[in-house]
Amino acid sequence: MLLSASIAEGSGSMRIQIINPGSAAATRVAAAARTFAGPGTEIAAVTVDDAPASIEGPVEAALALPGILDALVLGAAGGAVAHVIASFDDPGLDAARALARGPVIGIGEAAFHCASLVAGRFTVVTTHVRTVPVLAGNLDRYGLSRRCAGIRAAEVSLLALDDPHSAARDRVSAEIDRAIREDRAEAIVLGMAGMVELARSLAIEHGLPVVEGVSAAVRLAEGLVALGLPTSKIGGWAPPRRKSLPPRLAGAVD
Amino acid sequence: MLLSASIAEGSGSMRIQIINPGSAAATRVAAAARTFAGPGTEIAAVTVDDAPASIEGPVEAALALPGILDALVLGAAGGAVAHVIASFDDPGLDAARALARGPVIGIGEAAFHCASLVAGRFTVVTTHVRTVPVLAGNLDRYGLSRRCAGIRAAEVSLLALDDPHSAARDRVSAEIDRAIREDRAEAIVLGMAGMVELARSLAIEHGLPVVEGVSAAVRLAEGLVALGLPTSKIGGWAPPRRKSLPPRLAGAVD
Amino acid sequence: MLLSASIAEGSGSMRIQIINPGSAAATRVAAAARTFAGPGTEIAAVTVDDAPASIEGPVEAALALPGILDALVLGAAGGAVAHVIASFDDPGLDAARALARGPVIGIGEAAFHCASLVAGRFTVVTTHVRTVPVLAGNLDRYGLSRRCAGIRAAEVSLLALDDPHSAARDRVSAEIDRAIREDRAEAIVLGMAGMVELARSLAIEHGLPVVEGVSAAVRLAEGLVALGLPTSKIGGWAPPRRKSLPPRLAGAVD
Amino acid sequence: MLLSASIAEGSGSMRIQIINPGSAAATRVAAAARTFAGPGTEIAAVTVDDAPASIEGPVEAALALPGILDALVLGAAGGAVAHVIASFDDPGLDAARALARGPVIGIGEAAFHCASLVAGRFTVVTTHVRTVPVLAGNLDRYGLSRRCAGIRAAEVSLLALDDPHSAARDRVSAEIDRAIREDRAEAIVLGMAGMVELARSLAIEHGLPVVEGVSAAVRLAEGLVALGLPTSKIGGWAPPRRKSLPPRLAGAVD
Amino acid sequence: MLLSASIAEGSGSMRIQIINPGSAAATRVAAAARTFAGPGTEIAAVTVDDAPASIEGPVEAALALPGILDALVLGAAGGAVAHVIASFDDPGLDAARALARGPVIGIGEAAFHCASLVAGRFTVVTTHVRTVPVLAGNLDRYGLSRRCAGIRAAEVSLLALDDPHSAARDRVSAEIDRAIREDRAEAIVLGMAGMVELARSLAIEHGLPVVEGVSAAVRLAEGLVALGLPTSKIGGWAPPRRKSLPPRLAGAVD
Amino acid sequence: MLLSASIAEGSGSMRIQIINPGSAAATRVAAAARTFAGPGTEIAAVTVDDAPASIEGPVEAALALPGILDALVLGAAGGAVAHVIASFDDPGLDAARALARGPVIGIGEAAFHCASLVAGRFTVVTTHVRTVPVLAGNLDRYGLSRRCAGIRAAEVSLLALDDPHSAARDRVSAEIDRAIREDRAEAIVLGMAGMVELARSLAIEHGLPVVEGVSAAVRLAEGLVALGLPTSKIGGWAPPRRKSLPPRLAGAVD
Repeated sequence: MLLSASIAEGSGSMRIQIINPGSAAATRVAAAARTFAGPGTEIAAVTVDDAPASIEGPVEAALALPGILDALVLGAAGGAVAHVIASFDDPGLDAARALARGPVIGIGEAAFHCASLVAGRFTVVTTHVRTVPVLAGNLDRYGLSRRCAGIRAAEVSLLALDDPHSAARDRVSAEIDRAIREDRAEAIVLGMAGMVELARSLAIEHGLPVVEGVSAAVRLAEGLVALGLPTSKIGGWAPPRRKSLPPRLAGAVD
Repeated sequence: MLLSASIAEGSGSMRIQIINPGSAAATRVAAAARTFAGPGTEIAAVTVDDAPASIEGPVEAALALPGILDALVLGAAGGAVAHVIASFDDPGLDAARALARGPVIGIGEAAFHCASLVAGRFTVVTTHVRTVPVLAGNLDRYGLSRRCAGIRAAEVSLLALDDPHSAARDRVSAEIDRAIREDRAEAIVLGMAGMVELARSLAIEHGLPVVEGVSAAVRLAEGLVALGLPTSKIGGWAPPRRKSLPPRLAGAVD
Repeated sequence: MLLSASIAEGSGSMRIQIINPGSAAATRVAAAARTFAGPGTEIAAVTVDDAPASIEGPVEAALALPGILDALVLGAAGGAVAHVIASFDDPGLDAARALARGPVIGIGEAAFHCASLVAGRFTVVTTHVRTVPVLAGNLDRYGLSRRCAGIRAAEVSLLALDDPHSAARDRVSAEIDRAIREDRAEAIVLGMAGMVELARSLAIEHGLPVVEGVSAAVRLAEGLVALGLPTSKIGGWAPPRRKSLPPRLAGAVD
Repeated sequence: MLLSASIAEGSGSMRIQIINPGSAAATRVAAAARTFAGPGTEIAAVTVDDAPASIEGPVEAALALPGILDALVLGAAGGAVAHVIASFDDPGLDAARALARGPVIGIGEAAFHCASLVAGRFTVVTTHVRTVPVLAGNLDRYGLSRRCAGIRAAEVSLLALDDPHSAARDRVSAEIDRAIREDRAEAIVLGMAGMVELARSLAIEHGLPVVEGVSAAVRLAEGLVALGLPTSKIGGWAPPRRKSLPPRLAGAVD
Repeated sequence: MLLSASIAEGSGSMRIQIINPGSAAATRVAAAARTFAGPGTEIAAVTVDDAPASIEGPVEAALALPGILDALVLGAAGGAVAHVIASFDDPGLDAARALARGPVIGIGEAAFHCASLVAGRFTVVTTHVRTVPVLAGNLDRYGLSRRCAGIRAAEVSLLALDDPHSAARDRVSAEIDRAIREDRAEAIVLGMAGMVELARSLAIEHGLPVVEGVSAAVRLAEGLVALGLPTSKIGGWAPPRRKSLPPRLAGAVD
Repeated sequence: MLLSASIAEGSGSMRIQIINPGSAAATRVAAAARTFAGPGTEIAAVTVDDAPASIEGPVEAALALPGILDALVLGAAGGAVAHVIASFDDPGLDAARALARGPVIGIGEAAFHCASLVAGRFTVVTTHVRTVPVLAGNLDRYGLSRRCAGIRAAEVSLLALDDPHSAARDRVSAEIDRAIREDRAEAIVLGMAGMVELARSLAIEHGLPVVEGVSAAVRLAEGLVALGLPTSKIGGWAPPRRKSLPPRLAGAVD
């Protein structure tokens, strides 16, 4: 159960698949992934069909799940050795891992792990209050709620954030101020997929690490592949029985 | 935000929808629901289209989610005032609650709550080891892992359990013996949808409460409706934005 | 160990005993229980002799315990198949369960369980600050502190709350406002026994579920009896040795 | 709010009251307390009237509570500046603290605190399995469950343990062996009130600290008095309202 | 493994070593220890060579560790039967325990244990914000974070606090006010070594127990010695292998 | 506060410092680091002077701390942009982070994070039982104890493990067998620095991911540098005051 074999069979470069559950941030996400990928890495970004434009809560996430799995199985068949699920609430992570051979990383998960390596406590600043319970639940499952000092919703739209002089950016910045003072946050996790420039400028402004998830996930995925670490196939992420799967997914468990 | 109004508008009886994510146990589940429903309750059981026959892990659960939501929205439009998701790993509970007005109860969740009212510690005996991490995660989210003394997989098929003299029943019984001795379990939660006769005979054999989920969920759903308690619509289960939904679901958020 | 036998031996109706540890709220509690009981349920309400008029902390609870147990044993002898302890801090729950055959439900406990079925997070609004640590400890034992967003004392007297236009009601309402804003509460548990009308009006005013304990406990007790679930008699709630008991209680362990 | 004043008013010696909820171990408990008390300490041991001979679970504890409070109030009136509740499951600790001015220490609590100062992990070896959930709950409330490696019931009678060559002693010793091997216990808490000689001989035999509760509680009570630390009277242990109390207790809250 | 032997070999008095990791508070610490020591106790206070003047975070603590261990081994060789580490963040507690035979108590640890015996919840008021995460981690390890209502940094210098009319004292007092109102603290732990007069005057001013660590540690150490409880030598605090130690420490593991 | 500036000032390659607290494994550790480092990474390995040959518990760790900090400050002055502490119990992580500008990664910490990305539950297999409590405490602080299914000591020497046919390897393998069966482990963390070949062969033998810490730490450190994430300098890892430091460290806080 070593991942390196399958990589060695490839072309020498490592292909990492970025799965966009929603279309809204797809371009920005792919750009972030490519910017931060290492020299030998090929980014293969796909957007899930038939899913809501953006995942803003459990309903959109539920509707996107079958498409995420379809995309993953297609990506693996096409040579991807690792997969990134590019929605900050990490939809379908367990199901994807049960179907994948290589690592599968959620961008929220990646950001939380990286933040806990550079800060004793971090606050998550996200877009809408509806995602707060989802992120809180994820942090619990990952174990990292202990390192999380708070989850704050800036109530901004991602679109507005593309403008560096928007009021939206000010609101995110104001939440970071509050996180430092009220939560004793030592780092910030930005709950907005692919906002690497925003993260960089906020880090300079506030003088603390600001972690963005897509870039973090790409680097963690690369690292796990380089270490030869596949997703475990025993226990909770064991592959489903072939007969439980529709034909389009059955190839994943051969 | 009182549920009683919508019930009063109905015919005098309370309609509870049972959503079977898989077809395998549908008949048994519906029978269990009808047996334990109160006199004024009408059980409306549906099976999700296009889903795996049974939910045995996160992949099958993911594939069933859109169908669960479709069924729920149709059921609510048809007059159901509460909904039971009849798979022991409670797939889609958060998404379903975000779309529903009345209570939505998972059968695993229902069994855990009832067990914790009649015993200080309970052990869950389920079918396959692959569901163990899912149940452990659910217990954490519900808060009831503190009352859970163990989760044991009997590695039996539901089909075999229909035969009261099968080896499968003996294996479940043997796990209960171990749960009492090794886990200090004071009650058992049977992780097998609708197995009310099995639960009854095991309770007599082992001299402790054995909780079955479908019956428990029906009674809890009835109780919440009678108490006039709807699902909260603020916070994590707030309805999604209408434009995020496909037309078949959009009616739920009008 | 099935409860149904003892019920079947009865007259066809299910008798649920409501034990009032203090006399102050006895009338209101009995009325709430009768209003929310199902059609086949007979409510037998008793008030504990020799106890403080109302339970406002651990001392009053301690003084009420022997009387609660006396009442329970008498009630069971008189045909009650389930028991509700009608003080919000659930005094004597473990001891009562060790003496009872049928389910014993605390009204605080009942309200917490019901709230966690209709909301991801709930805040408890109670009368006096002295009860806050008791409730916090109970929530921990039940496992549900994870779902509890806060416990707030409105510092009101129950008497004043009987007047719908009192300042007391306004203070409770103001705490609910704060709970929604500061705790991100999605439901409210009202820590005031039997205040069903108040709960109803606050639910309408604030647009979220407000759970009252007596009504919740009656419905849960009915449900457990209907499911044939007795209190477990192995482990922590095993009956005491007969010789440890005074004559008036010894009959309970025959 | 300094305790030293009331001590200074005394005779120069510090009187510590030992409250025996049951009569069975009273002589042994008083002897243990006197053996380990410091030179300036006077031990005033009382046995609660009308209580079961020994506390073996929640029912006996409930029945003993009013008598414990009566004894405490009498003891304080008679000059005791600290109180030890000498039953290993610490019955009535919160209520007693709400009535007391000086420190109140439970012998279970005392043993757990002392064990966690001399060992990273300790196992509790107690008499009967029925007390296990009570002790587990107490450890949670005290916070020390994190340091507890296990709770084991030796299923022995205290009477038998008085004989150093009894089979009972062998069973306790065998549980300690298992605790060291299976729980990685680094110390033992002996859940048997006043068994100081047994603790001493088991410590020599097994080569690890064995903590007995009565002696530990006496020393902690002395220490808190010497430090001038009373029981806090704000929050959870604030005194009850005078009018809630029967006349025999009302003097405690003047 | 009984401690009493080594004490019996001594001169009749019990020698407790106070190890000052930094020199800044050494005089005050020794005075506090002597004031609160029992009549038969001899206080042997030493200051660690080559360490920072005061421990204000993990770097100073790390630099002080070898000197703490040197001091402890010398102290034990000189007849000390227990050791107190007199810095509020308890540096080197595990390593010291692995080298010691008698009890080793940290002053932070001692204060937390004493506070949790006299109050349901306590707030820690410390000097600088940098120590907050260290104290939070310690509370977790001791298990007592459950009883801790908050950790507040008054941002004062110890020097300034020596003046009873300084602004520094007012800031500490103001934090206590906030702790009572905002944290519902029922007692205060003063995170400032040896400030016994300050603790006493704040207790009177605010009407709740205020615990100081040096005095608490001396009393706990005396108590453990009197109880014959040594530090456990199996498991996490087993002595290191002799060959791992420099010559100056090797004598400790003979 | 962006790390990229300091890297850009460098020679184009990224220098990562490996700090060996003990000399015993230094060669193997450096080789592992170099094998798994990315193409643009320069590994600068140093061994701490004056420290025990290997860190087998809290005493050795304490003795190594000042040397670890000296090495780190020298390494940073020499151009290292990230630091790996190459002892599995992560000694001095907090102090090192308070002195460093770039990321500091412990090899235990790195392995735990990587394991939790490829498995729902992992068991740690380490050398000696004395390190078990240290690792348990670390997992708690990192938050990842929730994902840890067990910590097992194989009681082997690292020297023996260098021989692939030794009995030592068999014992490690046997513990992995037990971890899979008894702990339901889905991955293994190997608590032995630099044992990359052993990890690889055990992964093949047992069919699950086996994570080695040095390689994991190097990859995580590279990733954090590439992401421009420094160690946070506010809160718990803020630099100490210059005057608290000996001259050899003072340069780190200029």
